[in-house]
Formats: sequence, structure tokens, C-alpha cells
Amino acid sequence: MPITISVLKEAPNENRVALSPTVVSKLVKSDYQVLVEKDAGSRAFYQDAAYTDAGAKVVDQATAIKGATIIAAVNQPSSEVVDQMSEGQSLIGLLAPLTDTDFVKKLAAKKINALSFELLPRTVSRAQTMDVLSSQSSVAGYKAALMAADHFSRYFPMMITAAGTAKPAKVLVLGTGVAGLQAIGTANRLGAMVSGYDIRPASRGEVESLGATFLTTSVSGSGEGGYARALTPEETAQQQEELAGFIAQNDVIITTAQVPGRRPPVLVTQKSVDEAKPGTLFIDLAASDLGGNVAGSKPAETVTTANGAQIVGAGDMASQLPASASDMFAKNVQAVITDITEDGKLVFDIDDDVVGELLATYQGEIISNRLRSAMELP
Amino acid sequence: MPITISVLKEAPNENRVALSPTVVSKLVKSDYQVLVEKDAGSRAFYQDAAYTDAGAKVVDQATAIKGATIIAAVNQPSSEVVDQMSEGQSLIGLLAPLTDTDFVKKLAAKKINALSFELLPRTVSRAQTMDVLSSQSSVAGYKAALMAADHFSRYFPMMITAAGTAKPAKVLVLGTGVAGLQAIGTANRLGAMVSGYDIRPASRGEVESLGATFLTTSVSGSGEGGYARALTPEETAQQQEELAGFIAQNDVIITTAQVPGRRPPVLVTQKSVDEAKPGTLFIDLAASDLGGNVAGSKPAETVTTANGAQIVGAGDMASQLPASASDMFAKNVQAVITDITEDGKLVFDIDDDVVGELLATYQGEIISNRLRSAMELP
Repeated sequence: MPITISVLKEAPNENRVALSPTVVSKLVKSDYQVLVEKDAGSRAFYQDAAYTDAGAKVVDQATAIKGATIIAAVNQPSSEVVDQMSEGQSLIGLLAPLTDTDFVKKLAAKKINALSFELLPRTVSRAQTMDVLSSQSSVAGYKAALMAADHFSRYFPMMITAAGTAKPAKVLVLGTGVAGLQAIGTANRLGAMVSGYDIRPASRGEVESLGATFLTTSVSGSGEGGYARALTPEETAQQQEELAGFIAQNDVIITTAQVPGRRPPVLVTQKSVDEAKPGTLFIDLAASDLGGNVAGSKPAETVTTANGAQIVGAGDMASQLPASASDMFAKNVQAVITDITEDGKLVFDIDDDVVGELLATYQGEIISNRLRSAMELP
Repeated sequence: MPITISVLKEAPNENRVALSPTVVSKLVKSDYQVLVEKDAGSRAFYQDAAYTDAGAKVVDQATAIKGATIIAAVNQPSSEVVDQMSEGQSLIGLLAPLTDTDFVKKLAAKKINALSFELLPRTVSRAQTMDVLSSQSSVAGYKAALMAADHFSRYFPMMITAAGTAKPAKVLVLGTGVAGLQAIGTANRLGAMVSGYDIRPASRGEVESLGATFLTTSVSGSGEGGYARALTPEETAQQQEELAGFIAQNDVIITTAQVPGRRPPVLVTQKSVDEAKPGTLFIDLAASDLGGNVAGSKPAETVTTANGAQIVGAGDMASQLPASASDMFAKNVQAVITDITEDGKLVFDIDDDVVGELLATYQGEIISNRLRSAMELP
């Protein structure tokens, strides 16, 4: 019996889907069977007919769950879905194991084998093709810059016309990880004057190679795995004060600073928001229920301040470019599944440096060292 | 007494304002007095304080009307405003004289001197700095391409990532006047594969110089003043059929074809819309109460078809980039006012090749030859 990969319809606030027809077609050619829940891809403009054409079977949810060797999901499936799964089935997706350990315990109790992209060891080069956080951050950064340009009341590029010249917009990107660099590149394509800020001095080269100006403050902090470290309260205050000067000189501020598993740092204080010129636009990619990088930002909402500045809570940008984001996500899923397939079966090597970390649960055990540490297991 | 230019708040569906603070500042330095109705610029992010800083007085509407030598407006002012104006006062704006001749008659009856940008002889080189249709079309084309990229479910640029490559979006621009060329340029900046279609073969050079592919059909029609001419029904049918082939090969179709004073031509038929792939995006810059270029488009609405294509009625794009659009508009207004100022007074030379055409009404007479012809006056 071939390995069967099932794809379910995501929750209503998620436009992405875990497999795209292009990737389904490749999987089917490699002898996997694919079951797609009816209407699973419609919000990403992938219709049932496209999956059928690619070689998948379109079925109801219960059939997709029951027939799955592995379920591919973007986000945590609902508890109704997990309840229908049985021992020995597998699950792959962004399962939020570090912040929702109850969910992990439930999967372990049911002896479901769960691979979660948040646990991927991103510095291992073999893991790059599986890196959902990177592919989706790249989408988010592109989309953030586009949305900024579409929301802004002025041209991004310099415009020279018969009646006079319009100056280019000044765009500041705070945080120059994958999302920040993509936002810088896209704003730059559109002709804005772009600068990028990071507390990791090593970012200078990447920012400058995109044609943008690199800014940094006297606070410096590189952390583990290429991320920035969390700052002390004193360092945060000093950083915020120095940043305020940069923010006041720009028209559009895109913020992308996230520290895994922690509340995002406030980079734009209430004072900076209050003092912003009318028409200033803040796009907060870190906006979530945990807070964001901009004081007063709200997830998936646009807040207009008394002074006429706008704060867009843009934590769901990847979901807003659903066709491309899903296709990238699907390629990452495909890379993992291919990696763990041996002789037509899924084989989980818990000693492998990638798979052993990606595995949240296997045969009732919590495997990932990072997750065990977060759960304070020995 | 100095010439006083008054600016009123536009109707609620218009975000633009006829003068920006930058232009007010220049006018004040040239000894004009400027009155700005309270809150006139707020939807363009130009606040009252910015006008005051530029040297204008912010006043109530009645004061602005009463004190005006000339009122600068984006669109036709309301009849309440016109009722408050008196003989000898002047008015400049997009007054729709060719389509609303009753309004012209009312202005003439009140002996208001009216300059209307639609009447500008666009081929006279001195008129270029006054060309509102050009400056606002340029804004509209930029904004249309941006909005397309922001609405589209995939990347515009080609993206090369660890997990694979995403193809660039294919964008087709129908009509390559000022708006079309700006849309082509902007989509190109964003990395899309762009082609431009026009029935005027002379457009080829402009389209190709922007790095796009030029498409044309066997129907050819250059008309007066650089515009395309209206086609016969047979020519239209032939054009539509040939265009359908181009449309089916593209992901995003931006339409910009307008014939002054007439219903816009239907370039995308219902059949093309029905056959479009899911996720196809039509942006109709000609969408108005008169109809549009895309079958089924509705002004200022997004229509989703049964097959998952979207049609955006985008007739008000200039109003959606209000700060830049207003500033460009204001520069055009400034150019006209400077042109008709002599020794601190407004002087209307009805024999001048620009002013004599721009003038809809002067001292109770209909002046513009084009308008007289449209009104069937001798």
C-alpha cells in the first residue's frame, strides 16, 4: 500500500493550504497517494479540479483523515480532527509545540507521530529545503512592503513630471531577518529610499547588498541560531530612544522583530506613534495576541491615531499571498516527506540531526531536545 | 488687494484636495492669498496646521467662498457652493463640462468664469504643466499596478528559494496611454512579465522602452489628439476575439482604455471573464457609471466570478493615492493660475491657444471651441 498524504481544509482565518497541485503532481509521480479534503485549496485559488488533475483524490474530511499515513497541515488541526486520528498515523505542520505543550501531550498520548516545522534545526544545511519559517517569512516580507505601498498616500518612487518632481518615500525596516530583507528588497524595487535596522551588526552586509542603508543602535545583540537575543530592560529603553530618532525621519516603518517563543520586543513606543507625522504608516509583522513591535498595534486590524498615522497589524501576511505561500509551504512538506521515506514507508530516525529535532512526538515519546527543554523534561 | 485662491473640502467619495501645503507655500511667496476650508485636506493627510504653516488661512466654507477671487476644486462643486458664488468670481477644476452641460449653463448664467481641465489642449507644449488628466492618469496607472500586486494571490517577481523557484506573474496592460505606461513601468519594477496592448501602432516604442512586450491586433486606430478613435462594431468584435487569446495567457489584466466623452470600449468580454483561470485578476481603470473595459465590472467594487476570477472596478485610483495625487493636481492648478496672472490680477485672454480652450465660460459666454461644438453652439 502506498504512503498516503492527506490535506485538510484549514480554519477559516487561514487562506493557505499545505499542498499545492504542483507539488501533489510531483508526489503522485513518486508513488505517493494524495487525498485532499473537498474545497481545501479554494481560498488559495487552488480548486478541487486542479488537485484531481494533479492525481489526487478529492474526498470528505473523515475519509481524508482515516486514509492518511500522514496528514499535512499548515496550522494545528482542530481537536475534532485529532480525535479522529489513530495510533501510528503521522502529522506535519506548524503545530506550535513550544507555546502549546498541551497539544503535544495529547498527540503523544494518542501515539501520533508529529513533525513540527518550528522545531527544524535551521542552521543544518540539509534542512534548508524544509524551512517553512524561512519560506513563509519571505512571503510575509514581500507582502508587507507591497501592502505598505498600496496603503501609503504618496508614491514610493521618485516621479519626475512636467509639473514638477515628487520625492521618493522613505521606508525603514526594523529587523533584517528573512522577512525584513525581503521587505527591503521589495520596497527598493518600488523605488523607495530604504534603510534597514538590526541589533545584529552582522546584518550590515546583507542590507547594504540590497542597496539600502544599514542603521544600528549602540545596543548590540546576536543570539543563538542567527536570531537576536532578548535585551535587558535597560538595553531596551536605550534602543527605543535611539530608534525614535530614525522612526521620526521616515514615512513608512515595517517592523519584523520576533524572538522565538517570547513576546515580540516593542521597537516603536507610544511616544513615537503619537509624534508620527500625519500619513505615517506602521506595518507590524510581529502583531499577534502576544503583542507586537509597535505600541498599540492590533492583530489583523488597522488603527488610525489621533494624529493621522496608521498602524497595520500584519501578523498574517503569508496567508494574504495564499497561492505562492502554499506552494512554498508544500515544497517544504515535500522535502520532509521525501527525506523520511525509505522503501515506500515512512521511517523516523530519531538519531538523525534534522528528523530527530523536527519530531515533536514519536511512538508516544517527546523527541525534540528543544521541545523537551521547553517542557522541562530530562 | 491680492488675488485670493480658495480651496474647499471635496465630496466624501473624493480623497484629493485641489491645493497641497507645498504649493500653497509657493503661491503665498508669490503674493497670492490662500483660504482653505477647515478640514479640506484631511483625507489626503494634509492637515489644517500644515496649511496654516504654509501661509494659508483656514476658514469656514462660507468665508472661503465669499473671499475667493478663484476657487480651486478637484471635481464639480455642489450646487450649494455655486449658489453662494457671485458674478466675476472664477472657478478651476475638473468640472465635467462635456458631459454635464447644464452645469456649464448655470455657471454662464451666473457669470462665473470657469476653467475646466478636461478642455485643456493637451498637444500644446505650454499646456503640459497644466495637464491634470496626465498627472492624475499617471497616479492611477501606478496605483493600479500596486493594487494588482497586493490583490494577487501569487508573487509578481520570480523567486528563487532553497525549496524551488516560483515563476513571475504575467501582467497584461490594455491601453498604453499615460495610465497604461505607468502601470507597465510599475509592474515591471515589481518583477512581473509585462506586456502592453494598444490599437495605436505608434505605442510600440514606448511600451518596448519600458522593457515590456508590445501586443497589437489586426484592428488599428489612431484618433485625434493622440487618443484612440472609436471603432466600428465589426472592428470591435474582431478586436475582442483577438484580445481573448492574449487575456487567457495572463494572470493579471489591467485595462485603461477610455475615449473622451464616450462609453469605454469593452475589451474583455463576458466569455473571456467566464473562461479566466481561478485567481485571475482584472483591474478596470475605466470602470464608471458609463460602464468599463471589462464585462461585469462595477465602479469601486470587487466582483468575484463563479470561476474564482476577480474584477476590481478601479475608476477612482487617483483618489486612492491622495497625497501625491493632490500635490500633482495642485502643481497643475498653480501653473494655470500663474499663467493667467498679470500685474496682480487674473486676466483671461480668450484668444490665447491654451486659455481660450481651457475656458468653459467667461463673462456669461461659452468660450471653448470644443465645448461649443459639444453643445452644438455656432
